[in-house]
Amino acid sequence: MTTTQETTTQETTTHTATTAPSLLHLDASIRPTGSVTRELSAHFAAHWRRARPGAGYVHRDLAAEPVPHLTHAVREALLDGADHGEPPQERALSEALTAEVRAASTIVLGVPMYNYAIPSTVKAWLDRLVTPAHMVAPDGGPGPLSGTSVVVVTARGGSYAPGTPREGWDHQEPYLRDVLRSIGLADDLAFVHAELTHANVFPQMASLRPLAEKSLAAAYESLERLAA
Amino acid sequence: MTTTQETTTQETTTHTATTAPSLLHLDASIRPTGSVTRELSAHFAAHWRRARPGAGYVHRDLAAEPVPHLTHAVREALLDGADHGEPPQERALSEALTAEVRAASTIVLGVPMYNYAIPSTVKAWLDRLVTPAHMVAPDGGPGPLSGTSVVVVTARGGSYAPGTPREGWDHQEPYLRDVLRSIGLADDLAFVHAELTHANVFPQMASLRPLAEKSLAAAYESLERLAA
Repeated sequence: MTTTQETTTQETTTHTATTAPSLLHLDASIRPTGSVTRELSAHFAAHWRRARPGAGYVHRDLAAEPVPHLTHAVREALLDGADHGEPPQERALSEALTAEVRAASTIVLGVPMYNYAIPSTVKAWLDRLVTPAHMVAPDGGPGPLSGTSVVVVTARGGSYAPGTPREGWDHQEPYLRDVLRSIGLADDLAFVHAELTHANVFPQMASLRPLAEKSLAAAYESLERLAA
Repeated sequence: MTTTQETTTQETTTHTATTAPSLLHLDASIRPTGSVTRELSAHFAAHWRRARPGAGYVHRDLAAEPVPHLTHAVREALLDGADHGEPPQERALSEALTAEVRAASTIVLGVPMYNYAIPSTVKAWLDRLVTPAHMVAPDGGPGPLSGTSVVVVTARGGSYAPGTPREGWDHQEPYLRDVLRSIGLADDLAFVHAELTHANVFPQMASLRPLAEKSLAAAYESLERLAA
């Protein structure tokens, strides 16, 4: 038991030794209020910061300030770093997003499910980060972002658990796992799902409210544990 | 053989009887020139139109005119049709995208793979179409878009076939299958993939060029067959 804990500590120290504790807190819900993912990501951030007084903290709101869709000029610049005629504000944005992720020792992503997948704003954010500078070998070999702790908080109206009618329709977690892995952000990656959020919205789903409440309570608990 | 063909014809007639032949041709590549998906979707469109003189035709370019990311006001309006304070141009865009899809008897989508998934612009387009008015029951029961023929042309730098290092990393086709099915667009749905397009770009992939050429040639052939 003690040995296991020591090993774990040593492994995570690889990153924390070179980076001061700093949290990147990202939200993507289009709801300014009443968003489950915003409430959950804020809960994680509050607990994480309370446990680390003086740690760095950055909040980015992809709904309030959407990352524009990728363009050819932006993509070419991300690939080779050269000037491909992209507007200066686009280059500045790519650099800012990259700097935020590189500076973070922990990232919490609040990602609602829209139409069985991630919001287009999250894809646009990822498109700025999946660059040759960040990509790791398929075997997961280390890269500049390796060792970062990542917590993804999702909310979905239904359930995608085994045995449900929409089993296999979760195109959010499997994609995020792979794309985050491609840039070294899956070494210490946790998903926390709040399911059946529609149970509180649609009368025909009222019978599922107890399950929804259980899922939400479990999500809060998981986040407190992960933030400790 | 004849019986099978007659059955097929009867099935597809359900839609064509109520809708004049009309093609919606959509492109999403950020490359204005040298795009494999643009060349392939144009090939399909040319063959389809040649076989149907006088048929309707609409081309929409999601790179030239990107659909803005979903906002809360736009989403609420899509859900209940009421006025939620969205800008008039946003409502007009939602209505135009819906009208284009409803008017089409055939849709060809040119969809490059960016970072293992669809472009954010395609997600933003889908977010305007996945509405209560279009959604069908999980068993695939008919909806207003049911019966439409859909051809998705994709291009990807690598290969995601069984046995390749990135097997399972194709987050494009599985997602598109499900989300299109949710709005009744998977009754007559075909995917045509041009794989290994990076073989012509990166010297270290040069040995894969014959495979890439074979994949591209097969894609052209499939599209001609589907457009007949």
